[in-house]
Parts: sequence; C-alpha cells; structure tokens
Amino acid sequence: MAAPPNRSVEAIYAPVRDELDRVDANLLDLAAKANLSLDDRLFAQAVLSGGKKVRPALTLLAARVGGERSDKPIVMATAVELLHIATLIHDDTVDGALTRRGRATAPSLWGGKVAILLGDYVFAASATYVCDTGDVYVIRRFSETIMELARGELAEHFSAFDWTQTLDDYTSRIYSKTASLFATAAEAGGVLGGAEAAACEALRRYGRAIGMAYQVMDDVLDFLGTEEELGKPVGADLLQGTLTLPTLLFVQARSDEPAVRRLRNGGAADDDLRELAGLVAASDAIDRSLEACGRYRREAQTALEGLPAGEARDALAALADYMGGRRS
Amino acid sequence: MAAPPNRSVEAIYAPVRDELDRVDANLLDLAAKANLSLDDRLFAQAVLSGGKKVRPALTLLAARVGGERSDKPIVMATAVELLHIATLIHDDTVDGALTRRGRATAPSLWGGKVAILLGDYVFAASATYVCDTGDVYVIRRFSETIMELARGELAEHFSAFDWTQTLDDYTSRIYSKTASLFATAAEAGGVLGGAEAAACEALRRYGRAIGMAYQVMDDVLDFLGTEEELGKPVGADLLQGTLTLPTLLFVQARSDEPAVRRLRNGGAADDDLRELAGLVAASDAIDRSLEACGRYRREAQTALEGLPAGEARDALAALADYMGGRRS
Repeated sequence: MAAPPNRSVEAIYAPVRDELDRVDANLLDLAAKANLSLDDRLFAQAVLSGGKKVRPALTLLAARVGGERSDKPIVMATAVELLHIATLIHDDTVDGALTRRGRATAPSLWGGKVAILLGDYVFAASATYVCDTGDVYVIRRFSETIMELARGELAEHFSAFDWTQTLDDYTSRIYSKTASLFATAAEAGGVLGGAEAAACEALRRYGRAIGMAYQVMDDVLDFLGTEEELGKPVGADLLQGTLTLPTLLFVQARSDEPAVRRLRNGGAADDDLRELAGLVAASDAIDRSLEACGRYRREAQTALEGLPAGEARDALAALADYMGGRRS
Repeated sequence: MAAPPNRSVEAIYAPVRDELDRVDANLLDLAAKANLSLDDRLFAQAVLSGGKKVRPALTLLAARVGGERSDKPIVMATAVELLHIATLIHDDTVDGALTRRGRATAPSLWGGKVAILLGDYVFAASATYVCDTGDVYVIRRFSETIMELARGELAEHFSAFDWTQTLDDYTSRIYSKTASLFATAAEAGGVLGGAEAAACEALRRYGRAIGMAYQVMDDVLDFLGTEEELGKPVGADLLQGTLTLPTLLFVQARSDEPAVRRLRNGGAADDDLRELAGLVAASDAIDRSLEACGRYRREAQTALEGLPAGEARDALAALADYMGGRRS
C-alpha cells in the first residue's frame, strides 16, 4: 500500500486511461446508433457524458488484478456506467431535478414521460453490454444489482421522515442504493480479468466498502459549506425527508432538542427541518460520520490485503483514499 | 393445422396449463420475497397477476416443439411475463392511468415515483429470471428486446399528432413496442426446448406475426363498439394523438375531409379529433385494418409450416387464429 494519500483522480486512473476513453467512445456510439427519435447530440452530451466515471474505473482497475487482457472489462465498464446513468435518469425524473452537474437533465430536456422511457432504454442497453461479456455469472450479478438499486431507492422513498428508522436501516439502504453497484463493478472486473476466486471476493468486499464510504461522504457533504458553496440549501436531503447518517446520529444523541421532538411527534414543518439541518451541521455528528467513512475506507484497504501486490492494488488503494478525502 | 378455428384460450393453453400455473406461482413468490417496503399483497394482486398470459403461454408452447423437457421454459416464461408487466407499470405511469382491467394501477396505488422504481425492479427481476436459463443467446435477445420495447414506446410518444407519418412508420413502431417481445418469447421457447435452428427461426417469425396481428387488432378494437361497451371514448388512442392503422388508412384515402385538413394544418382541436374518430369507426378503414390483421395471421400460419406436425404446432396454429379473432 505504498500509494501516496489523496492522489488526484486523474493520476489514479492513469493505468486505465486509454480503456476509459474507449468506454466514453462506447457511450457516444450508443447515442449515435440508438435511433430514438430525439436529439442524439443532446442525448450524448447531456445524458451520457460527464461524471467522474469512478464505477467504470473501478471495473478496469480491478480487471488488472488478474492480468488477463481482453476487451471484456471495457464492455463491462461501459455497462456499469450505463447502469449508473440509467439510475440517474430515473432519479432525476422521480425528483423532478432540472440540472445535474450544471447540465440539463433528461426530464427537463424532454419531460418526465420521455425520461422514464429513455431510462428504460439505457437500463436495457447496459444489460445488453453485459451480455457481450458472455459470462453468465457476471450477467446474473448485474441483474441482481439492478434489483438491489431499485430496492434501495424504494427504501429511501418509503423511509422519508421516518424518525423510527435505525442506523442499520440506513446502512442497509445505502448498500442497496450505492454500494451494491460498486461491489459488482469491482468483482466483475476481477472475474473478467481472470483473477482467482479469493481475489474476486476480496474485490467485492473492497468495492462494497468504498461504495459505503462514497455514500457516507456524500451524505456528510450535504451538510458542509454554505448555501452559496453547495448550490442548494444546507441539509437538502434532510429538508426532503431523507434521514442520513449525520441526522440519525444527531437525533440519537440529542432527542431532547425541541425541533427533534416536534418532528418526531409527526410534524414536518420547514422551519423545524431547517433548524435541525443547522444543528446537525454544527454538531459532532459530522465528525462521527466522517469517522464512519474512515472505517469503511480502512475496511477497503484491509480487503486489498487479499490481492497480489502491484500497480493495480496500489491504484485501488489510492482510489479508496480519494473516496474518503473527496470534497465534492 | 387441424385445429378448429377460434378455440377458447383456455383450451389452447391446456397442454401447458400446469406450467402456466408454475409461472403464476413464481410471480406471487417474487412479491412475497421482494422486501420492497410496500404492501406485498397489493403488489401481487394488483400488479403481478391478471392478464391473459399470452406471452408466457407462447414461450411454453414453443418449448414443446423441440420436446426437451426442463424447467428452463418455465423460468423464461416467467421472465417474459415480468417484462410485459414492467412495461405496463411504466406505460401506466407515463399515461397517468388509474385502472387497468378494472384493477388499480401501480401509479394510482403508490404514486408516480414509486411506480417508476417498481417498474425498474420488475424489469431487473425479469432479467434475473432470464439469467437462470443459463443461455447467453437467449439472455442477449432478451436485453435487446427491452431496448426495442423502449424504442417503440418513445417512437409512439414522438409521433403523436404527426400527420406526416407513413404506414411503414406504424409497422416499425408496433414491431418495436409489441411484436418484438412476442418474437423473442416464441424463439426463446424454441431454443430452450431444444428445437433445431430452423424451427427456432420459424418460431421467431411466427411470434413476430402474431404480435403484429395482436397489436393491429388492439388498434381496431379501439374504434369498435360504443363508449359504454369500451369503457372509454371511441378512438381513445386517436384522441391522445396516437395515429394507428385505421386512422392512417382513413387519412390516406380521405385527405379532403375538412376535419382531416384542419388537423393536418396543425390543429389538434378535440372536436376535430372526435369527429375524425367517428368517421374512422364508420369507414372501410376498419375492414381494411382487419384484412391487415388477417394477413399477419396467415403469415403466422405459414411460419408454422416449418415446424414438425404435432400437438405444439396445432396449439400455436389455434393461438394465431385466436389472436386474429379476439374481441377484447
């Protein structure tokens, strides 16, 4: 684990830069060939590109562990990114989000109806890419992961404003909605790169752990900074009823706060929610959440001990550090 | 082809009745095990059951052609029905439909957000079932079919009120949105039942043809009967802007009708649409559409000539007749 901490994401991706470019080319190709009666250029630019591509990078780096070189990891990495994009399209549709990373979302470009169908199309395209790996184990894992992602999103929806939920509920939910895809991306990379069974299992544990770290950090970042810096209100998740780790830790420790008591008694007044968001942001629940993130990061590093030393393991170690240290 | 015309659907399904019951059991099992934070009973009764199960029956009957007996056709038939259900959930969400066959739809039970995610879950469940066949060819065909279905729904959306569309546009659209799944259901049954390659290809052509007949009949039925009998206005598709075969044939032949001229010139007045619906319903465009349906039915029968004679072929022939003769 000789990697220096917090290398830039570009430096971490360097060993698989060319393959990531081929993933990008596949995404643009899909838009060009889809024949969907909508503006291909917008579909390509607004919907298919962008993002940090952490999931496909994970697949490609994991594929280096076994060392068998083929196009299969690139095909898989394309599928993994398409699946992520499909979930974003439906999330934006569900949330009525107009922009994401400064670009217009599918529902804002074409309306909710088209966005639902376009998301379905991208889901199916991702599954079709997975089929091109020809690996039935990987194909099945992928389908199970789509079910898991949907289960996680439904759980988030149904647990909104549910003050009785536990930390275990939160853990299970973020595994489903986020970490399951990281786990599958890493494991599938291992399998398709010809890594041994134990290494593939270690990659799955690693992927799960960095996925958990990623989501906890996301949930912390929702409370850090000012409204101007965030581009949205502090505690935007909480204001919508999504109770994440910082909120749950705060509520557990400070059940006597009047705002907490009113909310628990069935209120959902905006004033109380905004007050609670401010209290959470200023509390030690933030540091305690960052500690949880650190534990997942260390869990990821521990999982890597099961892998042969080398460039791939170093890059994965650096990626885990990056996940825990990111500020956006 | 000794089957008497227009046997009841129950009589046609008789050879695979037990297997269809196992498909039903699989659907209910999915609801029981899904753990989706919603009412399992409602999910099972309102969303997963019902319908005529023509697609899974098609898979199961096609599997009898090769004659290899295993559970794979049942697994595939479950996947095919789940895929159909997933598309219905998203269609009902897109259309804001409150009931289907007298039952409350997913969006009316749980709202549009949950319906989108539930549809995703059912899509993924269908793909997971397909994986259990272990047949990569069938798995890939299935993913391609999901893309085709989404492409068809998008094409329908984007061609609404488009008076310049051609009969070829219509044909291509109904292949995508309907017949592609019938084709895959039949072909996959053949493959998984161990039929020879030529028979599988014949089953695919047969499936496509009865799917086309099914959709054309659907589009005709939209114009037959009174508002009371239909439970919706005569020409409901047309009133929403969906131009189907009867409308396209009428408009082609009677471009001088004042209502047609006004609509073509960019109007979409409800009065004009209702007037046109009445004109179409009373015109020979209905009989000409039924003739098109008959041609697809005969195409299906011709495709069956490539199969060995026997109970399976007889049942498929009767199913094609049923498709062309159904009145609901």
